[in-house]
Amino acid sequence: MTHPIELPVLRLQEGRDRRVRNGHPWIYSNEIQMTPAAKALPPGQLVRVLDAGGTNLGIFGFNPHTLIAARLMAHDPRVVIDTGLLATRLRRALELRQRFFPTPHYRLIHAEADGFPGLVVDRYGDVLAVQLNTAMMEALRAPLLVALQEVLQPRAIVLRNDSSSRTLEGLELGTEIALADPDLDLTKPIEILENGGRFLVDVLDGQKTGWFYDQRDNRAAAAHLAKGVRVLDVYTYAGGFGVQAGLAGATEVVLVDRSRPALDRGLAAAELNGVANVSAMQGDGVFVMDQLFTDKERFGLVIADPPAFVKSKKDLNAGLRGYRKMIRSAASVVTPGGFLLAASCSHAVDAEAFTNELRAGLAKAGRTGRILRQAGAGPDHPVHPFLPESAYLKAILVQLD
Amino acid sequence: MTHPIELPVLRLQEGRDRRVRNGHPWIYSNEIQMTPAAKALPPGQLVRVLDAGGTNLGIFGFNPHTLIAARLMAHDPRVVIDTGLLATRLRRALELRQRFFPTPHYRLIHAEADGFPGLVVDRYGDVLAVQLNTAMMEALRAPLLVALQEVLQPRAIVLRNDSSSRTLEGLELGTEIALADPDLDLTKPIEILENGGRFLVDVLDGQKTGWFYDQRDNRAAAAHLAKGVRVLDVYTYAGGFGVQAGLAGATEVVLVDRSRPALDRGLAAAELNGVANVSAMQGDGVFVMDQLFTDKERFGLVIADPPAFVKSKKDLNAGLRGYRKMIRSAASVVTPGGFLLAASCSHAVDAEAFTNELRAGLAKAGRTGRILRQAGAGPDHPVHPFLPESAYLKAILVQLD
Repeated sequence: MTHPIELPVLRLQEGRDRRVRNGHPWIYSNEIQMTPAAKALPPGQLVRVLDAGGTNLGIFGFNPHTLIAARLMAHDPRVVIDTGLLATRLRRALELRQRFFPTPHYRLIHAEADGFPGLVVDRYGDVLAVQLNTAMMEALRAPLLVALQEVLQPRAIVLRNDSSSRTLEGLELGTEIALADPDLDLTKPIEILENGGRFLVDVLDGQKTGWFYDQRDNRAAAAHLAKGVRVLDVYTYAGGFGVQAGLAGATEVVLVDRSRPALDRGLAAAELNGVANVSAMQGDGVFVMDQLFTDKERFGLVIADPPAFVKSKKDLNAGLRGYRKMIRSAASVVTPGGFLLAASCSHAVDAEAFTNELRAGLAKAGRTGRILRQAGAGPDHPVHPFLPESAYLKAILVQLD
Repeated sequence: MTHPIELPVLRLQEGRDRRVRNGHPWIYSNEIQMTPAAKALPPGQLVRVLDAGGTNLGIFGFNPHTLIAARLMAHDPRVVIDTGLLATRLRRALELRQRFFPTPHYRLIHAEADGFPGLVVDRYGDVLAVQLNTAMMEALRAPLLVALQEVLQPRAIVLRNDSSSRTLEGLELGTEIALADPDLDLTKPIEILENGGRFLVDVLDGQKTGWFYDQRDNRAAAAHLAKGVRVLDVYTYAGGFGVQAGLAGATEVVLVDRSRPALDRGLAAAELNGVANVSAMQGDGVFVMDQLFTDKERFGLVIADPPAFVKSKKDLNAGLRGYRKMIRSAASVVTPGGFLLAASCSHAVDAEAFTNELRAGLAKAGRTGRILRQAGAGPDHPVHPFLPESAYLKAILVQLD
């Protein structure tokens, strides 16, 4: 790897160093002295950044074409960003996950908070699903793959480089198998364990990397309330909430999704776990819930965990109305004394805005109750202290009267 | 009890009914037609409230002297607020707690969210510690005590009516034993179970009602990280965090508090649980942490859970500086790779403000890391959906590099 002394050097504009000095890991393009030489650097280039006075601020990955122009890799400007450093950070992340989870099924790397700006690594046992979401991570692909093999000895590494954030960084989209044991058939679902349940992950074609580990703790919290009641799992995706509720003793579980393959995966998971009394309804979540309401079907526990309703800030108002409508429809099919877990994974919707919609949705349904739990993602999705907005997941558990 | 038809009637000002119709449980004094008859009502009087057009909005407890003038007891204006109704709500709250907790040790009633505006009931097995924090609850004292006995058959009920919120409501302060089995010596500590640990509660003289159940889940989360490391429990009060960390396998636990009786209670709890290697340091939390830093003492897990630094809005800035200083001092004694749990129970400090101070405190300590968990109180402290500001507890768990 390039010794830091040989890295290109960028300088900040006068007086724009304070945020970085305090620990923020990003530099915006308008804070950099954007010289022709800087503009000509290839996206993802590692650079040394100095303040306007020439003091070192650290080593960053640079992209001359993006608003977030530089992302911190190391405060110490003498550090060499090589396989060894990447492996050290992987080991640190691994140790943290091993404290929390009994089996090798978790998000191993969650971007900035784990010291890898824009990198996601989800671990499905000895198969890794990787997203390189920044030009810097794309540029570090080779040493990163070596480090992953060194630390984890995986049988396969799948690059799920189909996230829209790559487009922002000027990177191509696509899925690629970077490493695979020839005896391993990646087109077959991979089995993982979560909260004592067995689930099936489609690592090549599933949504995002194939499984949503972020809801693990919320699934456990919901399952805790499932014993002896009918459970409705809306937007089930792969049966995570519903099957765990079934394992916890629900009398009946109804899975709802507009995707047939998702429902089939959920039903297969139910079978795998020996959970009987699980049925599936295909259709739009709100539409199905409204139909169940009309049919006087009621549930002691309803989970409504949809895909992001707000993909960008311009969709905010429509998305908020969507959450309100979803919560109204979901609350309407909860028995008196029953429970509702409503979630939002929209980055642009903060916790306060989501709680407002919860309130409005309950009012529209004519229901009252009490909030028992408000939580984000589990500890394998850590949050960088300077990027609180990266805490995208909001899950609220309420009891309704 | 008075039949609702005989209750005094209050009317809202024109156009001030919308918030209540949507489900908000409070009416402010400037929203009420404050006639001489209304002003003359005794504090705590149950009233029927009508909108300006004469439509019923429900039954409220009224206090003509407070800014929050009316607190909702029932939307249905035909409901009689009697022992039966109070017992029904107590049973609903009890059932909810029994779903979550294996032993009878929890907050049974958490005010508005449980349908009892201003009432707190903490259950220590067959001893109840009660706070009547509104004039309405004071007025309902007699049927409430009957209902508590009917539902829970306690051996003792202690009224810890020494909260400053009573002063706002024009009520006297004091502690009173409302019921006690003559064989029970309430001056001796009561033993409770929490997360598998045994703890001692002083129900007559302890802070608030004697124990802080709100931190139960956060204590479990911290203890999860204690195995094999030295633990520092600052502002320990009664050893809750420290002793649970000891039970989880900490090599050594140091309890810090400025109160000698608190430290003695913590040490007694350590002994009760057979946790060795527990020591105590008396003094101000920040002062002790700074001294430990100078002495090069480091800990794999530090808990800093102080009493409220902000008691009223005018203390906000000083209190925020206090949290920043506390977090800086606490972070400074955490080993690389170790953990810090920092908490604030100040109502006036919201989650965002506390996270800001966390960030600033870490920056001052020259430390970075990742937020693993941000949580409030456990499910026995439910939040009324229309009173999100009542979610007073903020606990942040970070790993530090």
